[in-house]
Amino acid sequence: MLGKMATIEHLPMVTVFSKVHGIDAMLRTLHPDIPVKFVEARVQKDEPHAGLFKKLSKHEMEVLQEAEILLTDPYTVGTLLYELPNLKWMQITWAGADGIFKQLDRSKPFPTYTMTRFGGVSGIHVRDYVIGQIIAHERNFAEIRESQKKANWSDLLKSCNPKYRALQNLSIGILGVGEIGKEIARACKTLGMIVWGLVRQDLPAEKRCEHVDHYRKMDRLQELLENCDYICNVLPSTQETIGLLNGDVLQPCQAKKSIFINVGRGNIITEESILHALSKGWLSAAILDVFQTEPLPDDSPLWKHPQVTITPHYAAWIKANEAIDVFVENYWRYVNGEDLKHIVSWERGY
Amino acid sequence: MLGKMATIEHLPMVTVFSKVHGIDAMLRTLHPDIPVKFVEARVQKDEPHAGLFKKLSKHEMEVLQEAEILLTDPYTVGTLLYELPNLKWMQITWAGADGIFKQLDRSKPFPTYTMTRFGGVSGIHVRDYVIGQIIAHERNFAEIRESQKKANWSDLLKSCNPKYRALQNLSIGILGVGEIGKEIARACKTLGMIVWGLVRQDLPAEKRCEHVDHYRKMDRLQELLENCDYICNVLPSTQETIGLLNGDVLQPCQAKKSIFINVGRGNIITEESILHALSKGWLSAAILDVFQTEPLPDDSPLWKHPQVTITPHYAAWIKANEAIDVFVENYWRYVNGEDLKHIVSWERGY
Repeated sequence: MLGKMATIEHLPMVTVFSKVHGIDAMLRTLHPDIPVKFVEARVQKDEPHAGLFKKLSKHEMEVLQEAEILLTDPYTVGTLLYELPNLKWMQITWAGADGIFKQLDRSKPFPTYTMTRFGGVSGIHVRDYVIGQIIAHERNFAEIRESQKKANWSDLLKSCNPKYRALQNLSIGILGVGEIGKEIARACKTLGMIVWGLVRQDLPAEKRCEHVDHYRKMDRLQELLENCDYICNVLPSTQETIGLLNGDVLQPCQAKKSIFINVGRGNIITEESILHALSKGWLSAAILDVFQTEPLPDDSPLWKHPQVTITPHYAAWIKANEAIDVFVENYWRYVNGEDLKHIVSWERGY
Repeated sequence: MLGKMATIEHLPMVTVFSKVHGIDAMLRTLHPDIPVKFVEARVQKDEPHAGLFKKLSKHEMEVLQEAEILLTDPYTVGTLLYELPNLKWMQITWAGADGIFKQLDRSKPFPTYTMTRFGGVSGIHVRDYVIGQIIAHERNFAEIRESQKKANWSDLLKSCNPKYRALQNLSIGILGVGEIGKEIARACKTLGMIVWGLVRQDLPAEKRCEHVDHYRKMDRLQELLENCDYICNVLPSTQETIGLLNGDVLQPCQAKKSIFINVGRGNIITEESILHALSKGWLSAAILDVFQTEPLPDDSPLWKHPQVTITPHYAAWIKANEAIDVFVENYWRYVNGEDLKHIVSWERGY
């Protein structure tokens, strides 16, 4: 349906329109047999969510309009979504496709091309980030580092937390046990943590992940929150998840004074609800990689809150070689008429 | 040989002489059937290596001299080692016994009592520390935290390292694959790292750890150093390991610009040799939890070196409940005449 059988002489052209650094050059170098056209993505360098900075030339627009296969980023392609009449397949370089859905004009029908996301690689990056942040928090790495500047051993000792907890004695609730959540679960379980997982629907035994000790559906979220030292959100942004943790939802966390880690999407909870949960003592800390508004505005009270750690949507930064591996696997599937991997459903939104 | 069969009415007395916070109260609470005497360890609170701060009273000395079983810390018991005529078994609360060996008077015969160390629990703590430090280093946690103070997203992005490496793409060389080294190896392997292990003697296949990809003996240390992004020392301090990495030994690290993590003992390398390896670019960073001299003197150049992270011998801090679990298991072995666990050889020194 999607792909077509192609002889090696007639491989389909790939149009690269992405600001992932070096992605076009690396694609040409690693896979010289794949024909590539490149449209420069002129975006503000330091801002992952920035749209195009300068207008495309007429020629550049023509190249995009001719494209059958497009490798691009959500905020780079932006509202050009609807101006791709020949497109059959769009591979995006992000694990989450919500950036695409934000550009959708709901008054129009969905695009007819297939969209695939950057699947299968983010898990190890997000997992590293989550494990690293948990240990850094328990072990006071930030405070010790600050204290090192004083060059005094007694001061250094004072900055340690003698009540730190070993991972072995901690529990984590993972909101969203998809590809990324499972990798976090695997690492946490191996390091001795008790793992709870929040899922949207009941899973038959054979679909359950062996590294999740306790599955709970959305309607039993409270039970998960009551039992977990760390609450880690990796849910995508959908109608079902937006605002899921708002208001008093986090109150059950007071049992454990949980630490909230958000590596999913920022709109699962408002900034006000995070601050409220911290002030009430339901949460003892928040480690936030994603935000309601990105970039996080300079005047957000989160920046200087003593219990808040902020990172700039950094849990899984795409490397050109990884993006290419994912893309090229799908390219050969496309060429051979096989099903593509990591397809995003226009209807479901993830 | 060691223990004796005891009826429950005549359980042997335990003398606790330790500054591990709350250890005596917790022992009484958790195991009310075990008879306990307590001698207060008056040491400087913030200094793990401090010896006794005040002289013991005559009565306190008598209690120690009567002791058959002593639960103590290396620097607390100090040179009293030779003044324990009735002692049959001394359990220390540290994983490493070198603090005891430093107090030994080599002109005298070894004590006749059995010494056991705090075994089996440090592994999970040291492992957490090592994994956490690797991720914190790759992901620039310290720089990002510093940048958060500026409350600006662009600045935050600049503090990230776009070339960070996933654990999956890293290799680690563990110097010393004993109980602690094996636990580090298990965690690193599970998280996708390539694991090299340095051992003192050839191991038959059945004694090898499944999580170590490449074993090397001391005489092939260079090969390990050439191939590892991280070099993690967990060797105990013995005649064979003191100064092992001194001088130009770390030169092969220049191939990978390795990061050196020391959670073993500080005397495996001099401060000068660390600074030399950093200035030559053989090492790109050093993460040090142990030092040639502890406490690290205020005037050590390590404190303010931009590539050095210092923590105060904090990789595995003993918790009273963990120390008690280890002790009590051995206590019942002693009572039942079974072999004790984690015996330290006076002759070998570990």
